Amino acid sequence: MCCLRVYLNQFLFVKKPCYLFLILGLVSFSYQEAYAENIKKMPKNIIFMIGDGMGFSYLSAYRYYRHASQKNIFIHTEKTLFDKILVGSSGTHPHDETLVTDSAASATALSTGTKTYNGAIGVNIDRQVLPVFFEKAKEKNLLTGLVVTSPITHATPASFYAHHVSRKDQSHIANEFYKSSNQKVPLVDLAFGGGLSFFKREDRDLTKELESLGYGFVSDMSKLNSLKKIPALGIFGDYGLPSALDNNVYALADMTDHALNLLDKEDRGFVLLVEGSQIDWCGHANDIACAMSEMHAFELALSKALNFAKKDRETLVIVTADHETGGLSLGATGEYQWLAKDVLKIQAGSISIAAEILKTDLSHTAIYDVWERYTGLSLSSSDVSRLKQAAVDFRKSKADWDIGTGPLIVAINELINSKTYTAWGTSGHTAADVPVMAYGVGARHFVGFNDNTEIARILHRLVDKIQR
Amino acid sequence: MCCLRVYLNQFLFVKKPCYLFLILGLVSFSYQEAYAENIKKMPKNIIFMIGDGMGFSYLSAYRYYRHASQKNIFIHTEKTLFDKILVGSSGTHPHDETLVTDSAASATALSTGTKTYNGAIGVNIDRQVLPVFFEKAKEKNLLTGLVVTSPITHATPASFYAHHVSRKDQSHIANEFYKSSNQKVPLVDLAFGGGLSFFKREDRDLTKELESLGYGFVSDMSKLNSLKKIPALGIFGDYGLPSALDNNVYALADMTDHALNLLDKEDRGFVLLVEGSQIDWCGHANDIACAMSEMHAFELALSKALNFAKKDRETLVIVTADHETGGLSLGATGEYQWLAKDVLKIQAGSISIAAEILKTDLSHTAIYDVWERYTGLSLSSSDVSRLKQAAVDFRKSKADWDIGTGPLIVAINELINSKTYTAWGTSGHTAADVPVMAYGVGARHFVGFNDNTEIARILHRLVDKIQR
Repeated sequence: MCCLRVYLNQFLFVKKPCYLFLILGLVSFSYQEAYAENIKKMPKNIIFMIGDGMGFSYLSAYRYYRHASQKNIFIHTEKTLFDKILVGSSGTHPHDETLVTDSAASATALSTGTKTYNGAIGVNIDRQVLPVFFEKAKEKNLLTGLVVTSPITHATPASFYAHHVSRKDQSHIANEFYKSSNQKVPLVDLAFGGGLSFFKREDRDLTKELESLGYGFVSDMSKLNSLKKIPALGIFGDYGLPSALDNNVYALADMTDHALNLLDKEDRGFVLLVEGSQIDWCGHANDIACAMSEMHAFELALSKALNFAKKDRETLVIVTADHETGGLSLGATGEYQWLAKDVLKIQAGSISIAAEILKTDLSHTAIYDVWERYTGLSLSSSDVSRLKQAAVDFRKSKADWDIGTGPLIVAINELINSKTYTAWGTSGHTAADVPVMAYGVGARHFVGFNDNTEIARILHRLVDKIQR
Repeated sequence: MCCLRVYLNQFLFVKKPCYLFLILGLVSFSYQEAYAENIKKMPKNIIFMIGDGMGFSYLSAYRYYRHASQKNIFIHTEKTLFDKILVGSSGTHPHDETLVTDSAASATALSTGTKTYNGAIGVNIDRQVLPVFFEKAKEKNLLTGLVVTSPITHATPASFYAHHVSRKDQSHIANEFYKSSNQKVPLVDLAFGGGLSFFKREDRDLTKELESLGYGFVSDMSKLNSLKKIPALGIFGDYGLPSALDNNVYALADMTDHALNLLDKEDRGFVLLVEGSQIDWCGHANDIACAMSEMHAFELALSKALNFAKKDRETLVIVTADHETGGLSLGATGEYQWLAKDVLKIQAGSISIAAEILKTDLSHTAIYDVWERYTGLSLSSSDVSRLKQAAVDFRKSKADWDIGTGPLIVAINELINSKTYTAWGTSGHTAADVPVMAYGVGARHFVGFNDNTEIARILHRLVDKIQR
């Protein structure tokens, strides 16, 4: 696995000259430019990007992490694309007084403009169907697309096209996806993401059924570009897409780019949802290197969106989060430092490091070797003992591997967090406000603090006013 | 001590009809209105407000805390004054790569536009004097004032008028205050805050020396209004002002109001620094009720500033924080809730509760009584035992009372945090970005993300362009 720092530098400065050009070009991107647009003009296209779990401290952390990869070639910390188009913040609480939302309630709020209960997909607190954002778009005959790194039936994307009382039943949501596509006017014209296990099932193969409706379908990322027109479906992997950190794969940007090409071809106007779904998953695991890497993948996707909007001049790019995950604190134990440079050294997510440790004989030397290879951080003898004990406990506990609560994964993250002065308040979500970024036609409407339902209502008004 | 909830309701809705009017009036305040101002006009007055330690999660928490006091009379959570004028965010890192600033480095950045080291007051990394904001204001013959709840020689206010290699030497900074006042044109025309111990010392009584220079001086808050003109000095208490939560005193608003009256009288234009200094102190103690109460005091002061700016129409109000304190997480232990209503029940800061417990015989009944009286939260038998043990440890440890690290104070806050699902990442500061709010003439310049040095440079440019 190549060094991430080298990778970042390559990506940003050497291997992709077009990206270098983009970065330089974007220096002049700013909200001021957005304001210089004709502010009465309505957007023809809307790119709605959601960084799942991306609270304000994720933006700060990512800025410093990204800067650390650039060998301090700037005296002042270079701004990220998020910084360049930041316009405000958003509140995220669900309908009730618990104040902490899940992704379903907040995505439903962002899609429909209505508060609901945690777990709800496109329905209100009385379980009644709400008009979701893609339905709104179809009233104006716009094309619709979604690009995510979670299953395309996961809470956030589902809340833009489906209605169901519970986010948990992803097979039902896949059925809804099919049902809404088997109409005179399909509800979702393009979907790229994960979740094949909910589409190719023992009882039904929805991919075949969707193909028979005219959808192009691929399940191999290398064949993405073989999808030449909408309707198009790309489902890559049984559940989520490969993590950015473990795989050095930043597929979100490629998928976003190809989605924009396909949707723009017909010149009818479109709504595209792009979700950096796994930022949240890293937050749940309290895994800072994982979170930073997914933020990088999300920024690369944003660069595609901004590049499109800058050329097109009829597009609104709006970026926000559904909630904050983990209560990320850039500083711990009273120390006045947060070691972005050390986070950058880490070459794999905690779940992968745990898997590598479990492959060994759990000798101190073997554990130390895995640690050194994947983290580049120091490890004391007592740290090694701790990891060994956690590995033994892990095997005993049959812990839930996916959500990172296994004792070994916890031990790995606690060590990394302690060495980088990263702290987390929770393994769940928090009630903290989230950032709002906007660029292009209509961006000015999002300046300030807006509740997530207000963000949706502004978007609905913009769609309403589109002249066809 | 009366119930804070009743107090808030009284304050907001009954006892002060003018405040009710203000609240209603401010519903129409917004950045949109700010934009409707002639954007080329330069402000005559600048009110620069700093919520020390006030990260984004403090704004979210305060919104929900404040809403909980209002018996849910609004279907949607009512916006705070902060929400109504939010325009962006700011980065806070100091000059070096530790990334986590202290108040001195960040206040120096906000005052001078230059990054420096932690601890520096108005000097750069080479210990060279930087032109501070009040010196900038004096170039244009503006009046200058500061209103804080810390000592007026504390890091944040000091960085606006003084230059010193270390924030720690507050007596030296008091001497600098005197020296800068003993000039043909005094540097600070008005100062209200704490810190009498640094002015009335064994070696010198600077209050008398300042009176002999023509400063009106009071040290009793009830005599604040006897100061009828500038130069004026009000120093209330040896160190900080009484905490808002323990004393039901919201002096910051009264001091801000009186400062605005005195500075506006001469019609020369002014710069006024207002700091909610103790939000940070509560954050260091990881004391959520204390933090919310200081946020309330700061919002009341903001209401005075906005009311002035709205009438005056030549004033810029800019509000930000120097850094985030504590890594405040509104959610803990993976639970999806943050109990604002329970935070609202708490009637005293953890330091005061500790003092009350230490006055008792430490019997279970006595500890339970103090807890019930001051927090209104549940307390199990094992919780009582824990408090008792911590009280015994506290007496042994001679812990540092002021900064809240004593074992009893820690135990009290851990119980409150656990019962309200509040978590903290650190007892120090973090590298998280902070909110930026702006209203009035020139507010639009602060839309977006700006480093704290950029905030200062925008303010310097605005001052430069003032036509005298």
